[in-house]
Amino acid sequence: MRIALAQLNYIIGDFDLNTAKIIETIEKCKQQKSDLVVFAELSVCGYPPRDFLEFDDFIQKSYCAVDAIAAHCTGIAAIIGAPSRNPDVKGKSLFNSAWLLADGKVQSLAHKALLPTYDIFDEYRYFEPNRKFDCITYKGVKIALTICEDIWNLVDDPLYISNPMDMLAEQAPDIMINIAASPFTYVQQKTRLEILRANTAHYKIPMVYVNQVGAQTELLFDGNSCVLDSDGNLLAVCTTFKEDICFADFNPANKKIASEVDCNTEILSKAALIHDALVMGIRDYFAKMGFSKAILGLSGGIDSAVTLALASEALGNENVYAVLLPSEYSSDHSINDAIALAKNLDCKYDTIGISEGYNSILESLQPYFKELPFNVAEENLQARVRAVLLMGLANKFGYILLNTSNKSEAAVGYGTLYGDMCGGISVLGDVYKTEVYELANYINRDHEIIPLNSIVKPPSAELRPGQKDSDSLPEYDILDKILYNYIELRQSPADLIASGFDEAIVKRVLRMVNINEWKRHQTPPILRVSPKAFGQGRRMPIVGRYLS
Amino acid sequence: MRIALAQLNYIIGDFDLNTAKIIETIEKCKQQKSDLVVFAELSVCGYPPRDFLEFDDFIQKSYCAVDAIAAHCTGIAAIIGAPSRNPDVKGKSLFNSAWLLADGKVQSLAHKALLPTYDIFDEYRYFEPNRKFDCITYKGVKIALTICEDIWNLVDDPLYISNPMDMLAEQAPDIMINIAASPFTYVQQKTRLEILRANTAHYKIPMVYVNQVGAQTELLFDGNSCVLDSDGNLLAVCTTFKEDICFADFNPANKKIASEVDCNTEILSKAALIHDALVMGIRDYFAKMGFSKAILGLSGGIDSAVTLALASEALGNENVYAVLLPSEYSSDHSINDAIALAKNLDCKYDTIGISEGYNSILESLQPYFKELPFNVAEENLQARVRAVLLMGLANKFGYILLNTSNKSEAAVGYGTLYGDMCGGISVLGDVYKTEVYELANYINRDHEIIPLNSIVKPPSAELRPGQKDSDSLPEYDILDKILYNYIELRQSPADLIASGFDEAIVKRVLRMVNINEWKRHQTPPILRVSPKAFGQGRRMPIVGRYLS
Repeated sequence: MRIALAQLNYIIGDFDLNTAKIIETIEKCKQQKSDLVVFAELSVCGYPPRDFLEFDDFIQKSYCAVDAIAAHCTGIAAIIGAPSRNPDVKGKSLFNSAWLLADGKVQSLAHKALLPTYDIFDEYRYFEPNRKFDCITYKGVKIALTICEDIWNLVDDPLYISNPMDMLAEQAPDIMINIAASPFTYVQQKTRLEILRANTAHYKIPMVYVNQVGAQTELLFDGNSCVLDSDGNLLAVCTTFKEDICFADFNPANKKIASEVDCNTEILSKAALIHDALVMGIRDYFAKMGFSKAILGLSGGIDSAVTLALASEALGNENVYAVLLPSEYSSDHSINDAIALAKNLDCKYDTIGISEGYNSILESLQPYFKELPFNVAEENLQARVRAVLLMGLANKFGYILLNTSNKSEAAVGYGTLYGDMCGGISVLGDVYKTEVYELANYINRDHEIIPLNSIVKPPSAELRPGQKDSDSLPEYDILDKILYNYIELRQSPADLIASGFDEAIVKRVLRMVNINEWKRHQTPPILRVSPKAFGQGRRMPIVGRYLS
Repeated sequence: MRIALAQLNYIIGDFDLNTAKIIETIEKCKQQKSDLVVFAELSVCGYPPRDFLEFDDFIQKSYCAVDAIAAHCTGIAAIIGAPSRNPDVKGKSLFNSAWLLADGKVQSLAHKALLPTYDIFDEYRYFEPNRKFDCITYKGVKIALTICEDIWNLVDDPLYISNPMDMLAEQAPDIMINIAASPFTYVQQKTRLEILRANTAHYKIPMVYVNQVGAQTELLFDGNSCVLDSDGNLLAVCTTFKEDICFADFNPANKKIASEVDCNTEILSKAALIHDALVMGIRDYFAKMGFSKAILGLSGGIDSAVTLALASEALGNENVYAVLLPSEYSSDHSINDAIALAKNLDCKYDTIGISEGYNSILESLQPYFKELPFNVAEENLQARVRAVLLMGLANKFGYILLNTSNKSEAAVGYGTLYGDMCGGISVLGDVYKTEVYELANYINRDHEIIPLNSIVKPPSAELRPGQKDSDSLPEYDILDKILYNYIELRQSPADLIASGFDEAIVKRVLRMVNINEWKRHQTPPILRVSPKAFGQGRRMPIVGRYLS
C-alpha cells in the first residue's frame, strides 16, 4: 500500500481554499499511484480554529467540505482532519476527528482522546474526549489512527491517565498513522522525533506522521511530517517550513514499510531554526492577511536591524520600508549604522526627525508640566511620536508596522506602550536579547549584512543623553538567564538564588516581569519560537500580587 | 449547626492578605458562635490564579497559607478553597479543592469534578477532574461538598457526562455546600438562582452557596452568596457587589435550615446591574493595582460622558481628571457638553487643543503625504495625538487612562488603535452603544448629570467635517441587534437574514467583526458584564477567513 504524506499550509476558516488544496493533492497522489493520502489534524478548517468551533454554521460548512473531498476519493483513500458532531447529548458537542474517506464517501471516523489544554492549546474548550477505540482497516491493512496528542503520553510523568494506543494495540494493528498540528519551537523537532520513536519502540509497528506547515498568526508549524519503521528508523521526512508530499510503501505481506527517498535527518542550529521560522512567520502573516508591504522604525540598534533583515528575506527587499526617526538624543553612529544596513539590504529608507512633533506636543503640555523635571513622561513621548509617524505612513500607504521589541524587553516592560510596543506582529518578542545577537551573527554568516557596529555597541534606547540599557537593567547575559529560568522553567526566587544569582537582582527582575502583564496584554501577537512565549500560551493575572 | 457564609474580596497571589482576611473572618464568626464558616472557591490564592498555578512555589505558598488558617480553626470549622497536589503520577498535577479545617488542622478535602473550560474559564488547563466522591461529616451533619461548576450540569443539554451530586446523593447527605467563583453578567444572578433551585428540587436538601465578590481585572464577581432550604426558598443572601457575611442555622434533628435575617430577593434592572458592576470594576482595578487617579479624554459624546460619571462614582470626583482635546473638527456643542458634565460632576478638567501637535506631525509627514487626499491616515492621526497628550499627562502625574470605547465600536473596529483604543482598562467595552444610552439614563435617574444634549445628538467621531457614525455604520439599533445575535448567540449569516435583517448589512457587519480581531487583540482588558465579552472569553483567530 502506497501512502502519501501531504504536508500543506491551510488558512483557518477558508473552506474553499483548504478543500481545493486537499482535492488537488488527492488528484496528484492518485496520478502517482498512491493508495492512501494523509492530511493533517483539522486540515479541512485549519488549525487552530478557536472559537469559530462554537458557530454551528462553521461546523456545517466543514461537513460540506468533507463531502466535497470524499467525492474525489475514488481509486484512492484519504485521511483528513475535521470536527465531527458528538451524537450523545451529554458532553461537549464536538469531537476532533480523523476521517477515512474512500469509494466517494466517509468510511469511518477516529476521535481524539487526549485533548491538549495547556500552553497555547485549548482543545478541551471545544471537544469531548474519545472513549471508544477501534482500528480502521483499508485494503487489508489494519491502521491504528490517532490524532496528535494521543501519542504524546508515553512519558515518565504522563498528563493523562491512559494511552489511546494501548487500547488500539490490543487489536494488533499493522501500522500507526497520526495526524497532527504540532507547532514549532526550537526544541520541538528533536522532542517530536523522540516521542515518535518512543511509540515505535513501545508498539513495535511503523509510524506515519503528518503535520501541517505554515504560520497561523503567532503559531508557526514546521511540518517535518515523517515515516518511521518499526525500529524507529526515519525513512522519509517532508521539508521543514514548506509544503511537501512524501511517500512510503507498506507491504502487508511482511508488515514492512519502505521509502524510495533519501532522508535528511540533520537538525539545524538553534539560530538557523529560529531564523527560518521567523521568516516563514512574517511571510505567512502578510500573505494570509492579504498584505505585502512592511514598515518599521530603524534605530541603528540590533533589534530593528535583525527585524529588517528578516522582513527583507520574507517579503523581498522591495517590500520593506525602513524609517529612521532620530531625536536630539540619537547618536551619529545610530543613524550611520541604520543607513548602512538599509543600503546592505537595498531597502527603501527615509529619515524623519521627531524633534518637531515632540517639541510641539511638549509645548501643548507645557502649561501642565511646568518646571517638573524631565522623566519617563518625556522619554515615552519620544517613542510615541515615532509610533504616530510610523502609523501615519502605514495608514496612508498600506504598510503594516513591524514591532521590533525583543523578549527580554517584553519581559521586564522595558518599552513604551503605544510607542515602540506598537505593530501588527511582533517578530522578536519571543527571542531574548542574547538570542537576537545569535540571530544577527547567523544573518551575517556569509558576509556582513548587519553592520558590526550594531552588534558590538552597548544597547541603548537613546531617550535621554548617554542612556544605556544597563542603567536600568542587569547585563543581558545575567538578565536572560534569570528570565529563562523563571519564564520557561518556572523556577522560584529561592531556586534562582540557590543557583547563584544575586538575591536583589532576582527579586527586582521577577517583580518587573509580574508588574508588566498590563503592558504585554496590549502588545501585538508574537511569533512563537520557544516553549514558553508571551501571548496566548502564557496566561497571567494582570491584577495580582504574587512576587510583585 | 450555625453556618457562616463569608463573601470576601481576594487578591490573586497575595497570600498574606487573603490569609489575614480569612483568619480575621474566622475569629469574628467564632465570636458570633458559628460552628462552620464557609469561604469561596480558591479563596486562599484568589480566583482565577491562571498560570501562577504552574509555579510550584505558588502552590507551596498556598499550602503554607492553608496551614496558617487551619491553626485558627479551634472551636470552629472552616471550609476554604485552595489547590491541592494530585498524589497520582498520572494526570494533571493539581486538584481544585475544598478543604475542611477543624481542630487546628486539615480534616478532609473534596476535589472539583466538573472543570469549566469555556468562555473565560480554563480550569482543565490546570486541574485533574475528581473521580472519587465522599460526603464529609462535621458535628454529625453529613455535607455534600462541591465546587462551583459541579452543580451546574443539571440542564437539558449537559456539558459533562455525569453529575458529582448524583454520586454524593447516594450517601444521603443532610445538606449541600457549594463554594464558588461565579462571575457576574447581567443575567447571571437569575441563572444562578435557577440552577441552585434545580439542585434543591432534585436532591431535596438545603443548599449553602458561597461566592467571592470583587473585581479580578476584567472579571467582576457580584457575590450573592445565599442559603436555600430544601424547597428552594431563599433564606439569606449576602449583599451584591460587597463583602458580607450572613448566617444560617441547620438543625440536625429535623434537617431544617433557617435564617434570622430578612431576605431581599429583588434583582435590579439590567442598567442598574451594569452600572453597579462597572463602578465596582473600576474601583477594584484601581485599588488592587495601587492607583487612585484616573484621566480620560472627554469629547462631549455619550461614551466618555458615561465613563466619567462611572469613574467619578467609583474613585471620587476629586480623583478623576477630564481632558477636552478639541480639533478644528470639534463642534462647539461638544465642548460645551463636555464642560457641562465636568461641572455637574465637579471634576477637574482642562482643555488642550490638538491642532498644534497634529499640524506639526502632519508637517513632518508632508514630504511623503504630498498632495494625497485627506483620509483615514489623518483621521487616525488626530486620535493618536490625543492619546499621546493623555498618556503624557498620565505618565507625568500618575494617572491611569480610562478607555471609553463601547462594545459596538470594538466589534466593528470603529476606533483608532493607539488612539482612542488606548487605556489601562476599558470601562464600556462590553456595553453596546444602545446600552450606553440606557446607562446614561440610569445615571440621570434622579437629576441630569449627563447633559441631555450628549444623549440626544447623533453620535460622531468628529474626525472630519460633519462626520456622523451613521456615515460608516448602520444605525446603532440595527447594528447592535446584529452584533448581539452574532457575538452572544453565535447566529449564522443565514439565521440573521432569515430573521429579517438586510443581507448586505449582515454580511458587511460580520465581515467588520471578523477582520478586526487584530485591533481587539491590542486593546485593554474590558470589564465584563455580558455572557460574551471581547477578551479572554472570546478567542478568535486573528488570521482567518471565515465570513471575512
